[in-house]
Amino acid sequence: MMTGIIAFDADDTLWHNENLYRLNRQRLTRLLAKYQPPERTIALLDEIEIGNLVHYGYGIKSFALSMVETAVCASAGKITGSEILEIIHDTKEILSTDITLFPGVKNVLETLSLKHTLMLITKGDLFEQDRKVRISGISEYFQSIEIVSEKSVSVYSKILEKNLLRPENFIMVGNSLRSDILPVIKIGGKAVHIPYPDTWEFENIIPQPGDADGYYEINSIEQLPSLIEQLELV
Amino acid sequence: MMTGIIAFDADDTLWHNENLYRLNRQRLTRLLAKYQPPERTIALLDEIEIGNLVHYGYGIKSFALSMVETAVCASAGKITGSEILEIIHDTKEILSTDITLFPGVKNVLETLSLKHTLMLITKGDLFEQDRKVRISGISEYFQSIEIVSEKSVSVYSKILEKNLLRPENFIMVGNSLRSDILPVIKIGGKAVHIPYPDTWEFENIIPQPGDADGYYEINSIEQLPSLIEQLELV
Repeated sequence: MMTGIIAFDADDTLWHNENLYRLNRQRLTRLLAKYQPPERTIALLDEIEIGNLVHYGYGIKSFALSMVETAVCASAGKITGSEILEIIHDTKEILSTDITLFPGVKNVLETLSLKHTLMLITKGDLFEQDRKVRISGISEYFQSIEIVSEKSVSVYSKILEKNLLRPENFIMVGNSLRSDILPVIKIGGKAVHIPYPDTWEFENIIPQPGDADGYYEINSIEQLPSLIEQLELV
Repeated sequence: MMTGIIAFDADDTLWHNENLYRLNRQRLTRLLAKYQPPERTIALLDEIEIGNLVHYGYGIKSFALSMVETAVCASAGKITGSEILEIIHDTKEILSTDITLFPGVKNVLETLSLKHTLMLITKGDLFEQDRKVRISGISEYFQSIEIVSEKSVSVYSKILEKNLLRPENFIMVGNSLRSDILPVIKIGGKAVHIPYPDTWEFENIIPQPGDADGYYEINSIEQLPSLIEQLELV
């Protein structure tokens, strides 16, 4: 029987992720510079990527397929085989990149795990997230690890049900308003937002929760233990 | 507390899957016919696809990226933008295709679910498998659904542990020797093989288990209920 659980998002909450996407976005603008100005390439990629979410879901392979599509469109079909191979090559490179934890993450998890049950809830591609969790060096701190394809109200509700947990005893910590904060507030849980400047725009194009019940904001994960001490998490 | 569990693979055990891959393989050979004979395209795709498993894992998006790479290589870089878009288009099409259950599946699950706990264990892309399970119309028969990125001895062991289940009380039913049969036999479980003529070669390039303890083979899922009656699954 569980009492309370503190759950963490992973990408851009515990470790860097968006920087890898940004790197490949920049590479794509350079690759396509002879066909389109950079800002036009980025706008087209964003549009194609968001339109493709319904087909592909999240993750780097989905991103890669959208980059290929963008390359064809931005070049009006003039893209060459070797340019396409560059996109594939860059994709494989970021799929094998090491994990870089944010400062303080290991200490914070160590401290909190002494008194609380910790969980990891990450959205995205199963194969990619499995690999990142495995090499992160922090998987031992989590009693359970959930990899989901979307972080919706119903997904959070199922996780709570499975863990025989009431919403008021559930805290979610993450950088995405869309995925980590709003659905958790909606089901009556607590949510700690750690804004991350490079969060993909799509994850934050929703109203700020303001001073909604159960909503907290901190600047760095290092402030989490003292916030947790103030909250009643039975 | 569980007693026994009958677990099912999904792709090419409960519903058609490989036929969609075969369709897109054929489309690729036609697309590349001006560059390479079909058998050369297929051999190259197989080689690239298997080599990419370590980067991408399983699933249609991985397959699509390998098709794009094959197209560039098979055409010696001469592939055109619009030909690449055809691959992307074919990929989106099979990602939204309906599920076709094998004959008898629904009846068999209905019958078995009256007396046994049923589980689904499927390997592949989380987003794709989530969608297929949702639209399959048979998800209600399964007490739990596990989507995993690989079906290894350690993955099966963890599933058994999580369900407080002893291997002798676990039966896995599937078409892949590599994924559904051998690892389950290794941990002391029972495995029912339903060979499927179109199983991707990679899934069967291992020795047949022969008459190993716990190994059973049937020709169709419709023979499963009578086999289960003969087995001691407490």
